[in-house]
Amino acid sequence: MTGRDGGAPLERLGNAPVVVLVRPQLADNIGATARAMANGGLFDLRLVAPRDGWPQERAWRTASGADRILDCASLHDSVADAVADLHHVYATCPRPRHIVKPVLTARGAAAEMRQVCARDLKVGLLFGPERAGLDNDDMACADALVRFPLNPAFMSLNLGQAVLVMAYEWWMAEDQTVPRRLMTNETRVATKGELENFLGHLVRELDDCGFLHNLPKRPGMVRNIRHFFERGEVTEQELRTLHGVVSELAHGHARRGRQKNGN
Amino acid sequence: MTGRDGGAPLERLGNAPVVVLVRPQLADNIGATARAMANGGLFDLRLVAPRDGWPQERAWRTASGADRILDCASLHDSVADAVADLHHVYATCPRPRHIVKPVLTARGAAAEMRQVCARDLKVGLLFGPERAGLDNDDMACADALVRFPLNPAFMSLNLGQAVLVMAYEWWMAEDQTVPRRLMTNETRVATKGELENFLGHLVRELDDCGFLHNLPKRPGMVRNIRHFFERGEVTEQELRTLHGVVSELAHGHARRGRQKNGN
Repeated sequence: MTGRDGGAPLERLGNAPVVVLVRPQLADNIGATARAMANGGLFDLRLVAPRDGWPQERAWRTASGADRILDCASLHDSVADAVADLHHVYATCPRPRHIVKPVLTARGAAAEMRQVCARDLKVGLLFGPERAGLDNDDMACADALVRFPLNPAFMSLNLGQAVLVMAYEWWMAEDQTVPRRLMTNETRVATKGELENFLGHLVRELDDCGFLHNLPKRPGMVRNIRHFFERGEVTEQELRTLHGVVSELAHGHARRGRQKNGN
Repeated sequence: MTGRDGGAPLERLGNAPVVVLVRPQLADNIGATARAMANGGLFDLRLVAPRDGWPQERAWRTASGADRILDCASLHDSVADAVADLHHVYATCPRPRHIVKPVLTARGAAAEMRQVCARDLKVGLLFGPERAGLDNDDMACADALVRFPLNPAFMSLNLGQAVLVMAYEWWMAEDQTVPRRLMTNETRVATKGELENFLGHLVRELDDCGFLHNLPKRPGMVRNIRHFFERGEVTEQELRTLHGVVSELAHGHARRGRQKNGN
């Protein structure tokens, strides 16, 4: 099996950056690049003079199903050729020296690329060879450099990881997912009325069993219990469970005792 | 060489989340986890029942120098044991079903973990085994789940990549790098006065050579040239180069002609 007949049904999602791998050395990393691109909704891959030629079956094996990106990748002799039809080019670059160039964070670049793409301009994102990175001539082809903020004591990212960070930031730049939500699946968040109903049930049973017999302390104890149950969203299903828990704790022993004695 | 004597001089950076790998299968992924943790400034790694035992030399080989994280990793029999001293636990989870739980994005979780850590509480971040992910009992140990927004057509991330996204977001949650800046290295951004000085030079030479001879059109042509040079920040060094370019274009031929004839 070559892997070329299958893979995920990926397709181009609107106007998005083209990823240009400049003189990539390892087919594994070309595959990892395709996988990371798929994660972030990127589709167009261009390869400039891959060291071991193209295509290489190994790339399809490490792409984890992002086959279509590799199937559609184009091959170029030079960076100039790979970027000729593009309007803006960003070059990832770990340690730029002695040059005058705008430098963006990955997040800053993603936000800017979203804006440029929304203007129907074509954007390219250059990644250099594994060992040496982009050379000075490659960087001179770019409008701006992208440098990832990372722990300065450990900046080493491999090619696939660098592509993943950029692709992830590209995706996140338009992602609308709320940062925190309560996943309720089959149930729903309980209303304050439903919660009040449960708290009434609980307090009645606590009064009945004598837990709240100290009348001067009773209001404070009830408030403490309320504070606990009000702390996070409760679901309607959880309240039903809690009603059952309270009833059984209060009356289960007695009922089972009656059943045992009665039968 | 075992790789255990070297590696980057990593250390614990303040109160940061503990990464807990639950039943990891491949040593390669434990190494990749350490590498990704180092990228994001995380240090504490706990391993719950790794399939092939611990330590495994292969992990050190794929850690790319994040050896100290592996050297200091602790081994645990159960998730309960690994999280016993922690106050908040977040569990990464690709497809949570049939449970009621807060779900956070990676970015939302990173922001929240920064706040919790700032309160001197200990935070854990759970990652499940490669194939199956965390099981229902593992998830029940967590305060909240973390789900990465990614292209829904291709959500597949391997363990090392998932750790990288979380570690990167953890780092970014306090990173202060400006999204875009002009890197000037040895030079500096030119002042408006320096730019005006150059534009004056350019316009004088263009007047001299006859480029601006059409007097009705002259103001508009000068403005267009100004617009171009005002578009982005120019450095003081670039202006000196441009002064030279203008002088040489205007007088170089004539001077070289004189020298040739004179000598």
